[in-house]
Amino acid sequence: MIRKYAAEALGTGLLLVSVVGSGIMGDSLAGGNIAIALLANAIATGCALYFLITVLGPISGAHFNPAVTLAFALRGEIAPKNAAIYVACQIAGGIIGVWLTHVQFGLDILQASTTARTGIAQWVSEGLATFGLLFVILGGVRHRSEAVPTLVALYITGAYWFTASTSFANPAVTISRGFTDTFAGIDPAHIAAFVIVQLLIAVVSTPVFRWLFPNDTKSLD
Amino acid sequence: MIRKYAAEALGTGLLLVSVVGSGIMGDSLAGGNIAIALLANAIATGCALYFLITVLGPISGAHFNPAVTLAFALRGEIAPKNAAIYVACQIAGGIIGVWLTHVQFGLDILQASTTARTGIAQWVSEGLATFGLLFVILGGVRHRSEAVPTLVALYITGAYWFTASTSFANPAVTISRGFTDTFAGIDPAHIAAFVIVQLLIAVVSTPVFRWLFPNDTKSLD
Amino acid sequence: MIRKYAAEALGTGLLLVSVVGSGIMGDSLAGGNIAIALLANAIATGCALYFLITVLGPISGAHFNPAVTLAFALRGEIAPKNAAIYVACQIAGGIIGVWLTHVQFGLDILQASTTARTGIAQWVSEGLATFGLLFVILGGVRHRSEAVPTLVALYITGAYWFTASTSFANPAVTISRGFTDTFAGIDPAHIAAFVIVQLLIAVVSTPVFRWLFPNDTKSLD
Amino acid sequence: MIRKYAAEALGTGLLLVSVVGSGIMGDSLAGGNIAIALLANAIATGCALYFLITVLGPISGAHFNPAVTLAFALRGEIAPKNAAIYVACQIAGGIIGVWLTHVQFGLDILQASTTARTGIAQWVSEGLATFGLLFVILGGVRHRSEAVPTLVALYITGAYWFTASTSFANPAVTISRGFTDTFAGIDPAHIAAFVIVQLLIAVVSTPVFRWLFPNDTKSLD
Repeated sequence: MIRKYAAEALGTGLLLVSVVGSGIMGDSLAGGNIAIALLANAIATGCALYFLITVLGPISGAHFNPAVTLAFALRGEIAPKNAAIYVACQIAGGIIGVWLTHVQFGLDILQASTTARTGIAQWVSEGLATFGLLFVILGGVRHRSEAVPTLVALYITGAYWFTASTSFANPAVTISRGFTDTFAGIDPAHIAAFVIVQLLIAVVSTPVFRWLFPNDTKSLD
Repeated sequence: MIRKYAAEALGTGLLLVSVVGSGIMGDSLAGGNIAIALLANAIATGCALYFLITVLGPISGAHFNPAVTLAFALRGEIAPKNAAIYVACQIAGGIIGVWLTHVQFGLDILQASTTARTGIAQWVSEGLATFGLLFVILGGVRHRSEAVPTLVALYITGAYWFTASTSFANPAVTISRGFTDTFAGIDPAHIAAFVIVQLLIAVVSTPVFRWLFPNDTKSLD
Repeated sequence: MIRKYAAEALGTGLLLVSVVGSGIMGDSLAGGNIAIALLANAIATGCALYFLITVLGPISGAHFNPAVTLAFALRGEIAPKNAAIYVACQIAGGIIGVWLTHVQFGLDILQASTTARTGIAQWVSEGLATFGLLFVILGGVRHRSEAVPTLVALYITGAYWFTASTSFANPAVTISRGFTDTFAGIDPAHIAAFVIVQLLIAVVSTPVFRWLFPNDTKSLD
Repeated sequence: MIRKYAAEALGTGLLLVSVVGSGIMGDSLAGGNIAIALLANAIATGCALYFLITVLGPISGAHFNPAVTLAFALRGEIAPKNAAIYVACQIAGGIIGVWLTHVQFGLDILQASTTARTGIAQWVSEGLATFGLLFVILGGVRHRSEAVPTLVALYITGAYWFTASTSFANPAVTISRGFTDTFAGIDPAHIAAFVIVQLLIAVVSTPVFRWLFPNDTKSLD
């Protein structure tokens, strides 16, 4: 079990390195063209999700995301106590990943974001983003489990563009991104609403996916 | 069967979210450089096609496209009545996807496009685009069915660039894109000609692909 | 055999549609930033190579390239007479593909390029480009034949950037690109030297690859 | 064994062609937008890693990197003497690849970089980059060995963006890039520190990965 917890912390940490680091690099080089910065950000994040899920999936299931862990807990595929430890490891790993990124880029380690991300349109967008993420994970586990790393990677790369919030879809990532005042940041005051929407959608969509993808006998965990 | 119809509606809806949403995002961030907006649009659409066909293909065949459903009906691989319901689900899903995208981006829900897309060159382009799409689907089903999601995704990502019309190639997508006055829109007055060309090519190319890809005993449906 | 010849003509034709069409689209939208145009061009061409080789490879071997056909002929994997017909189909298909692209984009059908591509550095680059293409094809056939479509697609996408000539590496493509005065064109006066280098490298590298990839008992053809 | 050494030299040489060549091309076409140049550079390098590892992996293990060879030597999967020859072939191949790139682009063959890449933040970044590279290689070999080419390719494409140093992570590549005063260069005075960090991390991380990916009975070599 220690190895599973380490995998969740390490994986979420490296995911945040990729999200925050590529945001900093893209933003600093793009000369003000935000679309190019977001393209780099989306591609780098997709790359990271592919390799993290492929390499760590066989160890911990590669959740890296409390909303995903919640969905698996509701399906009875992870025990509540283990789920709670998973979530703690994800959040701790994510924050350390942000700090390591700041060291790498020679920035102040401790920061708080000032980027506003709030309002009904953003929350609808996060709800859709989380629904879609669980859709590809649970549908992928059901129909083609070896494709899950590619499914999640391409889902997020696409959803950076087709959701108005650029698809956080992950409470651990959302909380961690509060700790950076760079391209990928989110004002800490706006985190709670995002997390509530993400977890709510995880709860609400679970029976929908039970119906759409029935007889699921495989498990990531 | 209900699950199949739901899969067609959901898949076409999410396809339109990706097409229209990434168009809005790309266009708003690209600072007037249309090539960068189209690149984001093409990549996000390709990502969406990959995950939608992978996850929903085992349920409904993942047509999401009346021209594809027509081609399978002509081949006798879907009954006419089911094909008609498929098409209705695709169109309804697509329009709802456009409206959800408008909510997400905080835009007026009800819109009509004012983007002209007409003329012989555009129609030739749509004919070619539809021919190519059926080519990769029917050839993929024949020779390497597990690659169909990748084939369709990369076909459309490429065809955004190598067809002059950016490759609608799908009557449900064409109709739905009439309902948005954003980057991906098409003036409703120009929809009929696109749809006629798309369906005509589906009919005309079916015997061509019967000859090119013979002894097809597998089916998506 | 008729189906094989048709596959070579159709595949080379669609390859030229993708190369020339995405060049026109990228160039017209990129607002003078050639790097963005080339990025679109490289991505669209890679996408096309993936789907063309996947779908047509099981029929004709998906050469689409006289230098490749020559290499397989030297290895005794295609009869000289069939090889000659392959090459004729490739060239005819390629030129028709260019013309169809002009129709699509509403341009004059008959054109001749005025883009200079000549000099020792360009020829060295074409030699390297052709060597690399045969390297991935013959190595792929030897070690992982199901990956050949991906290998060729990614090779060309990369080689657009890492060779100074943007990697024509294909006599049929080179000749066809003489017929378009757009982004992808090459002045007809400079075609012969490119083709000579490409064929020469195919001849010279064949024994090198026989040694590097020995005991090849599989064949594309 | 000769074939293995040739594969390491050829593979590292073509890797440097792709890194340096795409840097020159991207930089010269991007009109001063460094993000676009880096995007082309990252995509082309990822493409090259995919095809090089796929085609040459079955011959030599496709290390192309003294830090990787060191890690496999520490694991007892390559004999010290062979490892030393591997490293010599990698460095020689890499430098020749740089020179060939200069010929291709019509530049002076012999150059020395003047691009400063130094300081604690850069070294931390290189340490992280090397850790991540070994993580995907050793985790990939352990859990899904057929995915190693894709894992390494996507890792490096992503790490160009999410590490502050653009992820050299390879002593042979670092040394070779000292020989070019173009986009990808590194001032020779700054090479030693990079190489020391890279090798140190290879040594330090080996027991970490032994614990994280236990019972590894497969080998690349």
